[in-house]
Amino acid sequence: MLVGGRHYRSIWWDEDRHLLRVIDQRYLPHEFRIEDLTAPASVFDAIREMHVRGAPLIGVAAAYGILLAARGARSADAIDNAVVQAAEMLVGARPTAVNLAWAVEKTRNSVLAATSAGSKKAAARAEADRLAEEETERCRLIGLSGLPLIERLSSTLDRRVNILTHCNAGWLACVDYGTATSPIYLAHDRGIPVHVWVDETRPRNQGARLTAWELGQHGVPHTVIVDNAGGHLMQRGHVDMVIVGSDRTTRTGDVANKIGTYLKALAARDTGVPFYVALPSSSIDWSLDNGADIPIEERDADEVRYVRGSSGGETVDVLVPPTHSDAANFAFDVTPAGLVTALITERGLCDASEEGILSLFPEGRGNE
Amino acid sequence: MLVGGRHYRSIWWDEDRHLLRVIDQRYLPHEFRIEDLTAPASVFDAIREMHVRGAPLIGVAAAYGILLAARGARSADAIDNAVVQAAEMLVGARPTAVNLAWAVEKTRNSVLAATSAGSKKAAARAEADRLAEEETERCRLIGLSGLPLIERLSSTLDRRVNILTHCNAGWLACVDYGTATSPIYLAHDRGIPVHVWVDETRPRNQGARLTAWELGQHGVPHTVIVDNAGGHLMQRGHVDMVIVGSDRTTRTGDVANKIGTYLKALAARDTGVPFYVALPSSSIDWSLDNGADIPIEERDADEVRYVRGSSGGETVDVLVPPTHSDAANFAFDVTPAGLVTALITERGLCDASEEGILSLFPEGRGNE
Repeated sequence: MLVGGRHYRSIWWDEDRHLLRVIDQRYLPHEFRIEDLTAPASVFDAIREMHVRGAPLIGVAAAYGILLAARGARSADAIDNAVVQAAEMLVGARPTAVNLAWAVEKTRNSVLAATSAGSKKAAARAEADRLAEEETERCRLIGLSGLPLIERLSSTLDRRVNILTHCNAGWLACVDYGTATSPIYLAHDRGIPVHVWVDETRPRNQGARLTAWELGQHGVPHTVIVDNAGGHLMQRGHVDMVIVGSDRTTRTGDVANKIGTYLKALAARDTGVPFYVALPSSSIDWSLDNGADIPIEERDADEVRYVRGSSGGETVDVLVPPTHSDAANFAFDVTPAGLVTALITERGLCDASEEGILSLFPEGRGNE
Repeated sequence: MLVGGRHYRSIWWDEDRHLLRVIDQRYLPHEFRIEDLTAPASVFDAIREMHVRGAPLIGVAAAYGILLAARGARSADAIDNAVVQAAEMLVGARPTAVNLAWAVEKTRNSVLAATSAGSKKAAARAEADRLAEEETERCRLIGLSGLPLIERLSSTLDRRVNILTHCNAGWLACVDYGTATSPIYLAHDRGIPVHVWVDETRPRNQGARLTAWELGQHGVPHTVIVDNAGGHLMQRGHVDMVIVGSDRTTRTGDVANKIGTYLKALAARDTGVPFYVALPSSSIDWSLDNGADIPIEERDADEVRYVRGSSGGETVDVLVPPTHSDAANFAFDVTPAGLVTALITERGLCDASEEGILSLFPEGRGNE
């Protein structure tokens, strides 16, 4: 989408310099920095330390990490060794998103299936590029699937449509378009008046920092709110629909997403506001039929204790609670399928249920 | 309660210097500052700018503001004029808490009822002191009302009791003990093992800054979490009970409290965790029978956009979202009575319903 009027993706391969480039999201919105990644270990760090984040994007980044591993070795055997090692490392960078393991496995297998050193490198490149294109296309299709929901509300209400979103399921989390934001961008680009309530999304403030920045750069009207505010806004009729993303969805429609999503889903049910989850099928975990089995990453408590922002033109981390207070940092929660109005996928809308999901993705039947 | 091993209240009259002293809560937890207040306008600012906050405390502070007004005039007529003017100003400092208007009216009426200048000043002093003592005693009794709930959980569970709280309904919000924290302090002081999940409570972080500081100073084990985390903790069985305070409660048991309280109440219902609201009867608004009629204060959006913390020993405000993003700042939300397990009052527990409340406070019957 647009940054300063120019089209960007969140990740791209630099053909001339033979390296991976990503937008380093840690410095947004106050600094727009692009990072060069030249080795699998740097990709691991970039995923682990969240220079790049978002389920679709970290899968693509890890695939390019495999490419970097392959390019760093000479013989076919050495490439296989490097790729297997890199794959093992990269899969461990973040535990919750299922795309990561899936993208790594796919790219590794392509490399192992090829025979010569040259064809192995070419296979890695082709696979990583394909994954990036597939994620982009899935996001575009998610937008088309969700667009009629917004169009319908717009013509029923005859005023701007107020959409609440949590965290950043935007193009920065994907490669382009985003998942939750894709229907919003498409609606906005077609002239449908939309306004987005942006949950700031503590502890890392991906909403305030990234979603607000994305929407602002693209010209979409939006208002940043604290995570506490969404329930009140729904009670008083200021939210017409909620759209969030998903880091992992079970075959039965339970949705793991950024911590706090569950609370918004409860408020939406209580107030009769439709609650949609936008996701590419790559984030469906066919092996799970219960959200309670999704591993929930616990991250460094300092992400809760310190807040990053801008002061006098500099990026500063400030400590909020007392020095000696403990803090805990659970990164995701699980919204039970029963609270989800519908899933918005690249193949259309479906019920958040095994039946609903299989009706759009019958290939999931073989994957339990 | 204890600060550095010494007993403090959040507000007190300095007999020697004839002025009001308060803990300036804007600088906690990283600086412990005491502020001198010598005129009603300074009390207004201290309430408005939240040097002091919390429904019970701002009522007491405003009462002392009336005393300062009375002391600043000489003749009986001049005192009456000054007090009426100060009352009008002070009532407008914050719109949601009902104690504020109530305390101001009570103190003003005491002054107006007295005849001589001396007796007017004495009446103001007596009324403000009485309000402070009454709030303290109500908080102590709230603790005694809630204590058996914790004792019972402790003996049933045979492990430490995990209590989640939102915002600061602690002694800093009152004069001493607090409301939501009072049963916790009493349990802790009696050797019952308790642990408190402290919602940081954006945007002003009263949980992370004040509740965590209070609990830490008094030696109560606690863990700071983001506001998004409580639902997940309840889903996974890590919360045994929720206790929050209230800024205003309708005669029918709808509870206005810090923004985000409603979301925790929804999660508690969904997961079967008991949800208690601790409140002095002074915060019951007998004139309202519907929470939707409670005015919800909208505060400066910069409270959402900037976060205050400590960096390199200095207090710094950092900007989180993009400079040009709008933000909105609703200070409270309303939790419908149906989500409240029970009210914890100075006269015991009751249902969050008109019948329940009137059973403990039959005098409310005359007050519609």
